[in-house]
Amino acid sequence: MSSKYPVSVRTCLPLCALVVETAFILIFFFFTTYDVVSEKQQLMDKYQVFQDVTVMAALGLGFLASSFPKHSWSSIAFDLFILAVGVQWAVLLNGFLKDDYNGEIVIELSSIQVATMSAMSVLISASAVLGKTNLVQLMMMALVEVTAFSVVYMTSKKVFSLEECTSMMYIHVFAAYFGLAVTWCLSMSTPSKEQMEERLAKSSSLFAMLGTLFLWIFWPRFNSTLLYSPDERKNAVFNTYYALAVSTVTAISVSASAHPQGKINMAHIHNAVLAGGVAMGASCHLISSPWPAMVLGLLAGLISIGGAKCLPGWARPVGLMRFHRMLMVHYTFGLPGLLGEFAYIIVKVYQLSSTTNSLMCYKILFDIGVLSFVMVMSLATGFLTGSLLRLKIWKAPDRNKYYHDQTFWKFPHLAAGF
Amino acid sequence: MSSKYPVSVRTCLPLCALVVETAFILIFFFFTTYDVVSEKQQLMDKYQVFQDVTVMAALGLGFLASSFPKHSWSSIAFDLFILAVGVQWAVLLNGFLKDDYNGEIVIELSSIQVATMSAMSVLISASAVLGKTNLVQLMMMALVEVTAFSVVYMTSKKVFSLEECTSMMYIHVFAAYFGLAVTWCLSMSTPSKEQMEERLAKSSSLFAMLGTLFLWIFWPRFNSTLLYSPDERKNAVFNTYYALAVSTVTAISVSASAHPQGKINMAHIHNAVLAGGVAMGASCHLISSPWPAMVLGLLAGLISIGGAKCLPGWARPVGLMRFHRMLMVHYTFGLPGLLGEFAYIIVKVYQLSSTTNSLMCYKILFDIGVLSFVMVMSLATGFLTGSLLRLKIWKAPDRNKYYHDQTFWKFPHLAAGF
Amino acid sequence: MSSKYPVSVRTCLPLCALVVETAFILIFFFFTTYDVVSEKQQLMDKYQVFQDVTVMAALGLGFLASSFPKHSWSSIAFDLFILAVGVQWAVLLNGFLKDDYNGEIVIELSSIQVATMSAMSVLISASAVLGKTNLVQLMMMALVEVTAFSVVYMTSKKVFSLEECTSMMYIHVFAAYFGLAVTWCLSMSTPSKEQMEERLAKSSSLFAMLGTLFLWIFWPRFNSTLLYSPDERKNAVFNTYYALAVSTVTAISVSASAHPQGKINMAHIHNAVLAGGVAMGASCHLISSPWPAMVLGLLAGLISIGGAKCLPGWARPVGLMRFHRMLMVHYTFGLPGLLGEFAYIIVKVYQLSSTTNSLMCYKILFDIGVLSFVMVMSLATGFLTGSLLRLKIWKAPDRNKYYHDQTFWKFPHLAAGF
Repeated sequence: MSSKYPVSVRTCLPLCALVVETAFILIFFFFTTYDVVSEKQQLMDKYQVFQDVTVMAALGLGFLASSFPKHSWSSIAFDLFILAVGVQWAVLLNGFLKDDYNGEIVIELSSIQVATMSAMSVLISASAVLGKTNLVQLMMMALVEVTAFSVVYMTSKKVFSLEECTSMMYIHVFAAYFGLAVTWCLSMSTPSKEQMEERLAKSSSLFAMLGTLFLWIFWPRFNSTLLYSPDERKNAVFNTYYALAVSTVTAISVSASAHPQGKINMAHIHNAVLAGGVAMGASCHLISSPWPAMVLGLLAGLISIGGAKCLPGWARPVGLMRFHRMLMVHYTFGLPGLLGEFAYIIVKVYQLSSTTNSLMCYKILFDIGVLSFVMVMSLATGFLTGSLLRLKIWKAPDRNKYYHDQTFWKFPHLAAGF
Repeated sequence: MSSKYPVSVRTCLPLCALVVETAFILIFFFFTTYDVVSEKQQLMDKYQVFQDVTVMAALGLGFLASSFPKHSWSSIAFDLFILAVGVQWAVLLNGFLKDDYNGEIVIELSSIQVATMSAMSVLISASAVLGKTNLVQLMMMALVEVTAFSVVYMTSKKVFSLEECTSMMYIHVFAAYFGLAVTWCLSMSTPSKEQMEERLAKSSSLFAMLGTLFLWIFWPRFNSTLLYSPDERKNAVFNTYYALAVSTVTAISVSASAHPQGKINMAHIHNAVLAGGVAMGASCHLISSPWPAMVLGLLAGLISIGGAKCLPGWARPVGLMRFHRMLMVHYTFGLPGLLGEFAYIIVKVYQLSSTTNSLMCYKILFDIGVLSFVMVMSLATGFLTGSLLRLKIWKAPDRNKYYHDQTFWKFPHLAAGF
Repeated sequence: MSSKYPVSVRTCLPLCALVVETAFILIFFFFTTYDVVSEKQQLMDKYQVFQDVTVMAALGLGFLASSFPKHSWSSIAFDLFILAVGVQWAVLLNGFLKDDYNGEIVIELSSIQVATMSAMSVLISASAVLGKTNLVQLMMMALVEVTAFSVVYMTSKKVFSLEECTSMMYIHVFAAYFGLAVTWCLSMSTPSKEQMEERLAKSSSLFAMLGTLFLWIFWPRFNSTLLYSPDERKNAVFNTYYALAVSTVTAISVSASAHPQGKINMAHIHNAVLAGGVAMGASCHLISSPWPAMVLGLLAGLISIGGAKCLPGWARPVGLMRFHRMLMVHYTFGLPGLLGEFAYIIVKVYQLSSTTNSLMCYKILFDIGVLSFVMVMSLATGFLTGSLLRLKIWKAPDRNKYYHDQTFWKFPHLAAGF
């Protein structure tokens, strides 16, 4: 029975959503005002950057997550829902956590943009969880994860005095391991291998490729957007572009060598071509010639394909299918993100090479400490969120209905009226 | 027989199109010159805005209309055709109707942009009519509707002295009710319910979602583009963004509550998530804090889903399928557009609350008068156009062939050669 | 056997790609540095233009090439691969061939942009060759063609003293005839007509339409990007837009008249609507009123559809299917490109009409000479490349496997694990 009639979220979802939305409206009513803008050119430029970031979040990550053919409707529409909830909450949180908060949040265009970037952490994590959760669970996850990431972001900015850009770039590592931790909690059992394979069948459509291309094209914008010196911004754009170009060439060619008949795996391509951009995130403004970016792109491509090929090996005994989406997140954002953080530490050390050894050691330990803090925060909040989402009250979809649009969507041919 | 061999527009279409095109070229030859531009930065900024508006028209509205799987080729290609015809005609009309017209139209980048926005009225109306009309009919409709809308736009700008932005925002109401009136005239009979359901079958593909996302992302640009004070423009961007975010959350969650098993209707999502942007159009520059925009977004989402659910009820006796596309236009652009106009009147009244009662009454009556003028114009010209399009000379597609690409397109597997 | 187990590029592809990539990194290491940027506004504007050109290359041309349903994965992914390789090589080549080269290449944002435009020549040619070649062959072709086009581009800029924009616009003619020459060499035999027709079957999907629309929307940017006077740039934007609008109307309506039942051919639409933009390329900055652009758009639409209809007639005896993709390239870029070059000569002559006859004759002969040089270079290098690609060492796909994704891609349902 339960496999035929999935648990309905008919009352639960609208109730939760409208309560959250009403709460948001009330908080906005009491605590926020708009910035006053007088300079038109600046507004135009900022708006352009903001719009490009929104394209990445809604189109890029939305379509990237659509590679399951029977679950593509949910992936894209739920991503838009998460984005809309996440941005509102992130604007409020970033306002409350600001140094100069005095009872009123002044909303600027840049604060919506930073909020969109924070909400992208949920979109990245969600791509590991989509198909196993309903919208109520995803909304809860969005609220918790935006909170956790905003705390991490503000801590590394204010407590550890890191630059805005460096603090933001922990997003990849944070989101990937948060997502992994949540999935770990959720997926104690899955549909049978046969059922899953049928659902993976045609997989990885051209829509996912569309999402990939949008991300590929706009990634230099993403990495450069929180930098304010023209020269750093230029470095970020150039390095990200070169890293992406090299990781594309590497990923596609190495994917062929990983298959016995030399065939390319589309799922690799969707994700690994982006590895260069992720790996470049943390150090993109510090490098001022193309070759280190290209080397990093090469390594990111290798690590990403390597991760995709090797992990299934030791993961198989634990349950093959359970890891499928986790892995995609891990090798797209997790591993290249870690590589990027290590590259950041190496570049920093190189820049300090003229100073004393003790200072350098301190710097290395400090950076490793911050990275560990991010990892611990992401895994801890991830497991907490995962445990929270396993509660019965959320009416999670039945495990036989994982990765199936039919659980959530009215299909015309099944409908009595329309 | 007639169902097998649809009426050919082989000679009719190229003849009409080439005559119209030649007429355009002659009018452009005798009456137009290009503007002289000397400031590069300004050109770059204006070009960017113009390009974004074109993305909304060609990609956004084009793909939004593609939700019928057997009619998606026609929807997208015909929309591009209408856009190309409509923009040329709108540039000429807006030039002729200008105050300072002295026998020569100076074409600026902004005039092509305003023309694109005027031509979008045809794209909106066409989404109610596509599938029941051939390209000749659509071209005629484009010419008539661009004329009618340009007259409305210029009247409200020059006779009623409204701002450029406010005049343009009547586009949603005008286009929706124009489209409804035309469809009413065209669709005295439709294919049988079975035939239609088969054609609706898989419906609402991911391409329509792509169109929706493009519109969602670029809507703040659309609402802000005719505002020239930086502060008003900033208000427009912020308010539109918040209204869209809230209407997305509302529409998706309320769509679930409207279904007995709590399932979400994809057709609702395609359209209702945009309701916030439409409703925000008229008053977006006047509101200077986020909460009224969010409330409006909430109401727009509710009204849009409510309209989609309730109207079929009383519409059923009249003929269910006949209304399908009309309804989409009505609840995406019609109802939220009306809500937006009422919000505009309320905001105006609120701003005048310090003045005398008689002035306020006059202002309310004046605004309602303008709205009525737009409604009357749109319905009247719509019915006229509809009656015109029913003439035999246009060789309309047979009613059994409604919503079917095969009527208009050569399919490779049916072709003798290629 | 050979039809079941296509030749594996398992070792060949990664080896070649990594060797090329390592060579690039070494050359970048020894010869390049980044530009120093101090002015933020300029960087923002240049970045925007660069990003739009990348959208055209990766999304536009990538999806335009995806019209074969069984070969769409390869088309898009291989295009991205070619782009990534081509841009890196073109940046280096353009640096080495510069006048002021003194042992160090300073990479600016504009040099990556020009490199992207040069690499687009490979994407255009590749659309004639895709489906008959593997990635190793395509990479070789990219390296050779970027070299040849950069030589042509630099020669016409430095030796013939043509403007940057005019030199770049030879790209359409060069790429089209290079691609034709390569295909001619490759396709001495093809799959049987039945096999091909089955592979063409559903053809020309909405994804190709998406690519077309991206190109259509961004084409004014492409044509105007290498112009530096605001007035010339404005002319380029306006003329390109009008030419595209008119060629769209013409192409769609004439396509209907070319079919016995008045049906429109989707493959025509994908390509012929762009003819106006291609034809406008060379002379877009010289024309300062809309009507000549519109006339050119009309002619381009007619020539493009005419070319698509007439060529198959005399081509049929030689082997119908062999020409299919060649023809698409020919009537999208080849014929309209030639038309554009002739229009350029006529406009130049018209501007010189006040001078002496002998100067005018010299000018005409000079321009025809440059065009002939481009044609000869493109055909010669094309045939050379084609002969090179026929060598056994590249392990070209078996002819029965032409236009089939299965040759190159791992499909989930065929996979043992995943």
